[in-house]
Amino acid sequence: MARIITVGRQFGSGGRELGRRLAEALGIQYYDREIISEIAKKTKLSEEYVHNIVERKPMGLYPITVGKSFAYVGEYSLIQQQSVYKAQDRIIKELADKSDCVIVGRCADYILRDHAPFRIFVYASLDSRIKRCISRASNGENLTEKEIKRQIREIDKNRSKYYEFYTGGKWGGKENYDLCVNTTNANIKELVAGVARMLSENA
Amino acid sequence: MARIITVGRQFGSGGRELGRRLAEALGIQYYDREIISEIAKKTKLSEEYVHNIVERKPMGLYPITVGKSFAYVGEYSLIQQQSVYKAQDRIIKELADKSDCVIVGRCADYILRDHAPFRIFVYASLDSRIKRCISRASNGENLTEKEIKRQIREIDKNRSKYYEFYTGGKWGGKENYDLCVNTTNANIKELVAGVARMLSENA
Repeated sequence: MARIITVGRQFGSGGRELGRRLAEALGIQYYDREIISEIAKKTKLSEEYVHNIVERKPMGLYPITVGKSFAYVGEYSLIQQQSVYKAQDRIIKELADKSDCVIVGRCADYILRDHAPFRIFVYASLDSRIKRCISRASNGENLTEKEIKRQIREIDKNRSKYYEFYTGGKWGGKENYDLCVNTTNANIKELVAGVARMLSENA
Repeated sequence: MARIITVGRQFGSGGRELGRRLAEALGIQYYDREIISEIAKKTKLSEEYVHNIVERKPMGLYPITVGKSFAYVGEYSLIQQQSVYKAQDRIIKELADKSDCVIVGRCADYILRDHAPFRIFVYASLDSRIKRCISRASNGENLTEKEIKRQIREIDKNRSKYYEFYTGGKWGGKENYDLCVNTTNANIKELVAGVARMLSENA
């Protein structure tokens, strides 16, 4: 039984790799950054700006005096934020209606709650996430371990705030997922084979 | 790669069933209540008394004035508690040394931490646990839904206290497990086939 699968993930945990491989194993669509491109197209905003909205702390959570100026977090930006959220909501629902798929991030577990998705959360120890970030860094990207640690904490804090702002639920709280997978000591290929088996019809 | 697998579980979540089926699927030993019988044999205490110690709130956590009398929670009982813990520790290590196996409960994930066990935690929504408890009740066992709910909460509170007392870690905290499995909407046979696949060599 292939169907809609959503993947939430700590930064550096290998959640995107798991999602991509799972979609391959099940022979279904995989969506991640494509969603941002689609939102950008629909809202006529730049991909970078959209990325900032859907991956950063929601503006509604900033105290009104924080930011470059009052205008910066003013009505116009809040309207843009709302339009991005609405576009994201519509696009994710359209994708899920079109065909079975794996969707990484974007609160898709919440947006698609009426589709009864299989909700996965991928996590790992901080040390193993630092190692993974170092091993996958592009040439020329030379962050120190301390900088990577700060980056991981910052991104996850934003994901957590964003999820809680958007869904009212706890990001990574196991009650919000069907399966929580720790990749610290794991081989992602083996994990994926197992998750695919869980979702197959012939158990 | 079969190996040592530990299963922590919320009461009524189907964790024992999952553990038993997983052991069958992997063709390895399964231990649950057998451990209590072994402890009873080694300590010369009754199985019921041992069960009370390893499934109830640790005595060390009671205020000294609580209980039937000072003597009740006095030195003698604490010594017995210690001897049960020591026997449990030794028996679980002996079982793990003897052969690959699935061990349900008993803080085995912590006791066997040097064996790098695959640590599973099984959980479910309160409603689905109530339903499961009703469906598996023996003839003549006629608890109301309210009584079952109270029983679930009481047993899980004790398991949580016991785990935290014994290990210093958080019972059910996902960082302490390799895989957290929500059985609320799940078919346990399909889950088991998937987990067995994760643990097989040929992924």
